[in-house]
Amino acid sequence: MSLIIVGSVAFDTIETPFSRRERIVGGSGTYCSLAASFFTRPKIVGVVGKDFPQETLGLFKQRNIDLQGLEIRRGKTFHWEGKYGYDPNQRTTIKTELNVFRNFKPKLPPDYRAADIVFLANIDPDMHEHILSQVEKPKLVAMDTIRLWIETKTDALLKELEKVDIFFANDEEVKLISREINLVKAGKKILEHGPSVIIVKKGEHGALVFGRDLVFGVLAYPCEDVVDPTGAGDSFAGGFLGYLDKAGSFSKKEIRKAAVYGSVIASFVIEDFGIDRFKSLTSQEIEGRFRHFKKLVSF
Amino acid sequence: MSLIIVGSVAFDTIETPFSRRERIVGGSGTYCSLAASFFTRPKIVGVVGKDFPQETLGLFKQRNIDLQGLEIRRGKTFHWEGKYGYDPNQRTTIKTELNVFRNFKPKLPPDYRAADIVFLANIDPDMHEHILSQVEKPKLVAMDTIRLWIETKTDALLKELEKVDIFFANDEEVKLISREINLVKAGKKILEHGPSVIIVKKGEHGALVFGRDLVFGVLAYPCEDVVDPTGAGDSFAGGFLGYLDKAGSFSKKEIRKAAVYGSVIASFVIEDFGIDRFKSLTSQEIEGRFRHFKKLVSF
Repeated sequence: MSLIIVGSVAFDTIETPFSRRERIVGGSGTYCSLAASFFTRPKIVGVVGKDFPQETLGLFKQRNIDLQGLEIRRGKTFHWEGKYGYDPNQRTTIKTELNVFRNFKPKLPPDYRAADIVFLANIDPDMHEHILSQVEKPKLVAMDTIRLWIETKTDALLKELEKVDIFFANDEEVKLISREINLVKAGKKILEHGPSVIIVKKGEHGALVFGRDLVFGVLAYPCEDVVDPTGAGDSFAGGFLGYLDKAGSFSKKEIRKAAVYGSVIASFVIEDFGIDRFKSLTSQEIEGRFRHFKKLVSF
Repeated sequence: MSLIIVGSVAFDTIETPFSRRERIVGGSGTYCSLAASFFTRPKIVGVVGKDFPQETLGLFKQRNIDLQGLEIRRGKTFHWEGKYGYDPNQRTTIKTELNVFRNFKPKLPPDYRAADIVFLANIDPDMHEHILSQVEKPKLVAMDTIRLWIETKTDALLKELEKVDIFFANDEEVKLISREINLVKAGKKILEHGPSVIIVKKGEHGALVFGRDLVFGVLAYPCEDVVDPTGAGDSFAGGFLGYLDKAGSFSKKEIRKAAVYGSVIASFVIEDFGIDRFKSLTSQEIEGRFRHFKKLVSF
């Protein structure tokens, strides 16, 4: 099968209680594509400015990511600045500079149009239609979102949910969309809007997968050193969809395994700043931790 | 084997965003004993006033709980008042009236002294020694605690930890004792104080079990209607220890199963106010949900 990933390729300035990093490479499309690249050859759709480092483009190529859909434009790359509290689940956005992302209206390269799986990372829901209309016959459409779109583009978001098979969101977002405090009820309510599967990401508490006749819980790997939680959710989605693309099936069994691979990849990413951990990560490490996840929950 | 449970048998006044109940039966010893009674014949140690309802004593007898260690004194039963926010993990104590519990210095009945497992529910750590000195040769000592003792009797608490095999605490308490924000590090630090197993209860996010060469995660059952979260942690401990007492072994395998039974029992208790759910709960229901837990995490 084949997977296209539409998201931001960006610079992040990140402050944690222990350290600060300025303008390191990040973005939902970046994390997601790198994560997926351990399972399949993802096709990235995004835009960067001339200031984007050659070194990262080299890493993308080395990880065999299809870069035909990554535009390099005159101007500055999207820049996000955020701050974490002592609790890594608490994040505040300090600044968002859209830059070249502002007027990004991607035209998909010809062989992207035949994609089987489309992932719309946390982009403006108004852009979803623009992308989806270019894909011939996707077998599976997945999307993620952020608080910003839930609060400012609720109607557009709910409309897009109708066209989506798998919806990724964190627990706060799921409660916000459904106006339900109970996660199970919240998940069920969102299922009524269209998706057949909801993945509720809960940070250090793992994730819950809700579908029709499906409830599955996956832990977060107990990490002793959470260096930088940025990109954990996007990496989860990338690992999840990359695995499904490789598996070639969307059965409940594969969805369960995909969620575990998502959690495994996320657990590696947070061990270092930005995308640094991807530089050394191997498939052997991923498989090792996947096996460990089985031990972690078996009784 | 045999299990003694030392804790409060009390009245609770509970306010949730949806309802309020005045002076219903609760208490750590109550929840824990009722939960354990589905696996073994627990021996309760506690004190109540003359105002304690006969109906509940009848329920204890019906559940075959050994009541030799439950004193009935002239005076009023311990009374706790608390309030929950929309997030059931958020609880505020409004009032604690110790009443007959104030000068409780239990003398264990003769056949309690031969107990194999001792559970010290969230009682004053200064009382631990008084109890433990009366038990001849316990094979396993477990304890729970609350924020109050961590903040007001830190030294006594740390000293008691040295004598304990299994320590139950919620995530907030574990972080508070260890002064570590990361749960894995926090768990490891507490292991150094003496216990061989730490059970970190995380409410709706389940529990983590840390031991030497043991990390195990158990989910909370995804409940759609959390009516009253009171007693969930005590019921977890009761199910856990009741199962271990029945199993007659403290192997890693049994500890994993015990944690799942703990989570199963807790998931039932919160479906109704106070101890009401225990009145109709059956072993068949428990076994059914235990099997469901396997499905919930299998991949």
